[in-house]
Amino acid sequence: MSSDEFVVTPWHVEGDIDYDKLIKQFGTQKISIDLLSKLQKITGEDHFMLRRGVFFSHRDLNLILENYEKGKDFFLYTGRGPSGHTHIGHLIPWVFAKWLQDKFNVKIYFQLTDDEKFFSRQDLSLEETNNYALENALDFIALGFKSENTKIIINTKNIKTLYPIAAQVAKKINFSNTKAVFGFTNETNLGMIFYTSLQSAPCFIEDKPVLIPLGVDQDPHFRITRDVAPKINKFKPALIHNIMIPSLLGPGGKMSASDEKSTVYTTDSPEMVKKKINKYAFSGGQPDADEHRKIGGNPDIDVSYQYLRIFFEPDDTKLKKIYDDYKSGKMLTGELKAILIEKINKFLSAHQEKREQARKNIDEYMLKD
Amino acid sequence: MSSDEFVVTPWHVEGDIDYDKLIKQFGTQKISIDLLSKLQKITGEDHFMLRRGVFFSHRDLNLILENYEKGKDFFLYTGRGPSGHTHIGHLIPWVFAKWLQDKFNVKIYFQLTDDEKFFSRQDLSLEETNNYALENALDFIALGFKSENTKIIINTKNIKTLYPIAAQVAKKINFSNTKAVFGFTNETNLGMIFYTSLQSAPCFIEDKPVLIPLGVDQDPHFRITRDVAPKINKFKPALIHNIMIPSLLGPGGKMSASDEKSTVYTTDSPEMVKKKINKYAFSGGQPDADEHRKIGGNPDIDVSYQYLRIFFEPDDTKLKKIYDDYKSGKMLTGELKAILIEKINKFLSAHQEKREQARKNIDEYMLKD
Repeated sequence: MSSDEFVVTPWHVEGDIDYDKLIKQFGTQKISIDLLSKLQKITGEDHFMLRRGVFFSHRDLNLILENYEKGKDFFLYTGRGPSGHTHIGHLIPWVFAKWLQDKFNVKIYFQLTDDEKFFSRQDLSLEETNNYALENALDFIALGFKSENTKIIINTKNIKTLYPIAAQVAKKINFSNTKAVFGFTNETNLGMIFYTSLQSAPCFIEDKPVLIPLGVDQDPHFRITRDVAPKINKFKPALIHNIMIPSLLGPGGKMSASDEKSTVYTTDSPEMVKKKINKYAFSGGQPDADEHRKIGGNPDIDVSYQYLRIFFEPDDTKLKKIYDDYKSGKMLTGELKAILIEKINKFLSAHQEKREQARKNIDEYMLKD
Repeated sequence: MSSDEFVVTPWHVEGDIDYDKLIKQFGTQKISIDLLSKLQKITGEDHFMLRRGVFFSHRDLNLILENYEKGKDFFLYTGRGPSGHTHIGHLIPWVFAKWLQDKFNVKIYFQLTDDEKFFSRQDLSLEETNNYALENALDFIALGFKSENTKIIINTKNIKTLYPIAAQVAKKINFSNTKAVFGFTNETNLGMIFYTSLQSAPCFIEDKPVLIPLGVDQDPHFRITRDVAPKINKFKPALIHNIMIPSLLGPGGKMSASDEKSTVYTTDSPEMVKKKINKYAFSGGQPDADEHRKIGGNPDIDVSYQYLRIFFEPDDTKLKKIYDDYKSGKMLTGELKAILIEKINKFLSAHQEKREQARKNIDEYMLKD
C-alpha cells in the first residue's frame, strides 16, 4: 500500500483516508452547503460536528428532510460492535444521534452486534461479546437517551424480532454480492456471511424511513441494504457518515477498541487518561520547546487538537485560538495535551456517574421481543 | 445423467438410487446383522422397518447403543422442512422415532425448518412456511408422542434458543465447506448458506449424545455437524438413515410434497386417496388382466407394493403372500391397489382424528425459549 492509498471496510481501516476520494469510491454524497443550511433551518442549530465536517457524507439525507418538512416521520438507528469497552471515538455518532433525536423528536434503535464480533474475532467468545454489549449499552444510555423513545437491541437477545426480518433480506443477497462489497472469500465463516442481513434488520423494524448516523466504514453494509430494500417493498435507509476518529498513535486507521494504548476508554480513570494522552497522543509539535516556540506546531496532524475539534471543544472561538497558538508556537504540546486531558476528564467524570446510574434502569431500554 | 446415475442432496433427489453406492459415496455404515441383533436385544423387538432395510444405514449408532448399555443416556432429534402439507412418506422416520422413543425412553426434539423452505423456495413466503410448520406439527403429535418428553421447534419461533448454538457452529464452517457438501455457488442466497448451522443446533441443545432418524438425503447437513462437533467440544451426532420413499409416479426420486398428484397427503379424503392410488401409483403389472394372470407382475418396482413393504403392512407373512400372489399373476394390480387404499384410509381415518385433537394441545409440545 503506497502512502496515498487507504482501505475502509467494516472490519479494517488503514492508511491516510482521503474523504473526497472515499465519497467517490463508495458512491455517497458530500454534505453540501445547501443541505447544511436546510438542517440548520429545521433544527434551529448549527451543530459543530456538521460545521466542522466530522459528519461529511450522506445517502438520501435530503429525502429524509424533505419528507420531514411535509410532516412525514422517520426513525434513527445506529449501533456498535461490542468487541471491548467503549472508547471515546464510539461516542461521536451516538452524541450526534442524541442531538438528532432531540431536534426531530424521533425514536432511536441502538443495535449491539455481539454475534458479529464473535464471528469476526477468533479470540472472543459469545459470552464475552455479550458482556461487552451490556457494558457498551451503559455508555449509550449515559448520553441522556430517554427510555420512552429509545430501544436497545442485542442481537443474540433480540434475535426473535430480528431473524424473520433478516431472513427477508438474506433471501435477496447472494454470496457474490458479499464478495464484491466485503471482499469475502471461500474461507469466510458462515456467521460472517449471513451477518449483514442482521445489521440490515433494524432498518425495517418499523414501517417508516430510517436515518442512520454511523462511521463511514459501516457504509458497505447499508449499500447492500439499500439494494435489497425495494425488492422487499421497504424504504431504502438514509445514512449520515462521520469520519474515522484517529487513533491516539496518529492518523491512518480508526481508533480501535482492541489496542489498549491507542484507546481512551470511557471507563478510564483521570490518571489513565492523563498518562495515555501524555505518553501516546501523536503530536504535531517540534522535538523540543525552543524549536517549537520558533517554528510552531502542526495542529492538522496533532491528535490532541483533532480530538478537541471533533468532540471536546464545541466553541469555535476557543478552538481557533488553540489552533493559532499551537501553530504559531505560542502553545506547547504539553499545554495542548493538558487542555484535552482536562476536557476528557471533565466529560468522563460526569459520564461515569451517569453510566453507573444506567445499570439500574438498563432493562427499560431493552427491546422486548 | 445416465440411467445408473443418481443425485441425493437435501434439496434434490433424482434417479434410481443405488443405496450400497450411496453408503460408499456418503461414507456412512450399512446397518449390519450384528447391529440389528443388538438393537433387537435391547429393544426386545425386531422392527419391520429395520428388518426390511427401510432404515439401512447409520453413523455411530453402535456407539449410542454401547453407551446406552453402560447406562449413558441420549436424546432423539428429527425434523421436517415445511414446504407443504405432510405426506405419508414424511411419517416413516417419525413413526420409527416414536418406536425408538418408546423403547429407549428418551426425549425427542422435532425441528420444523420454516426458514429453510423460505430460503430454498422462491414461491413461498415465510408466513406460508410458518403455517405449514404448524400444520405439520399436528401430524407429528398425532403419531402419539407425549408432551412430557417431546419438544417441537419452529426455527423462526425458537430462534432465541437456536441462534446462539448455531453461531458456535457457523464460526467453524466456511463457504468452501458448504460448496463441497451442498454444491452451493456464488449465486446461493445468504439464508441458504447460513442455514445448515441452524439444522445443526438441536444436536447440541442438550449436553448428551443425539441420535437422528432421518431420510438419507439429509445426511450432508450432519456430515458438517459431525466435523464441527469436536471443535466446539460437543458430541458428534449419530444418525440412522431411511431410504427415500418413492413417488406415486414410480422409482427415481423421493415423494415430493410439492407435486400434488405424486403425493398422498395426511389430510386427503378416502376418495382422494383412492383416486390418487388408482390413477397414479406406478404399477409393476401387465397391460391387461389376461397377460398379468399369465406372466405375473413385478412387485419390486410396483409402488403400491413398496408402500405396503415400507409402511402399511408390518406383517411379514401377509406381505409375502401379497408379493407371491402379485408376482405369480394371481393378484391383479387393481386388487393390490385396493389393499393399499384400504390400509392407507384406515390409517388416515384414525390419524386425521388425532390430528384434529392435536390442535387443542399443540402448545404443550412447543419448545419454550
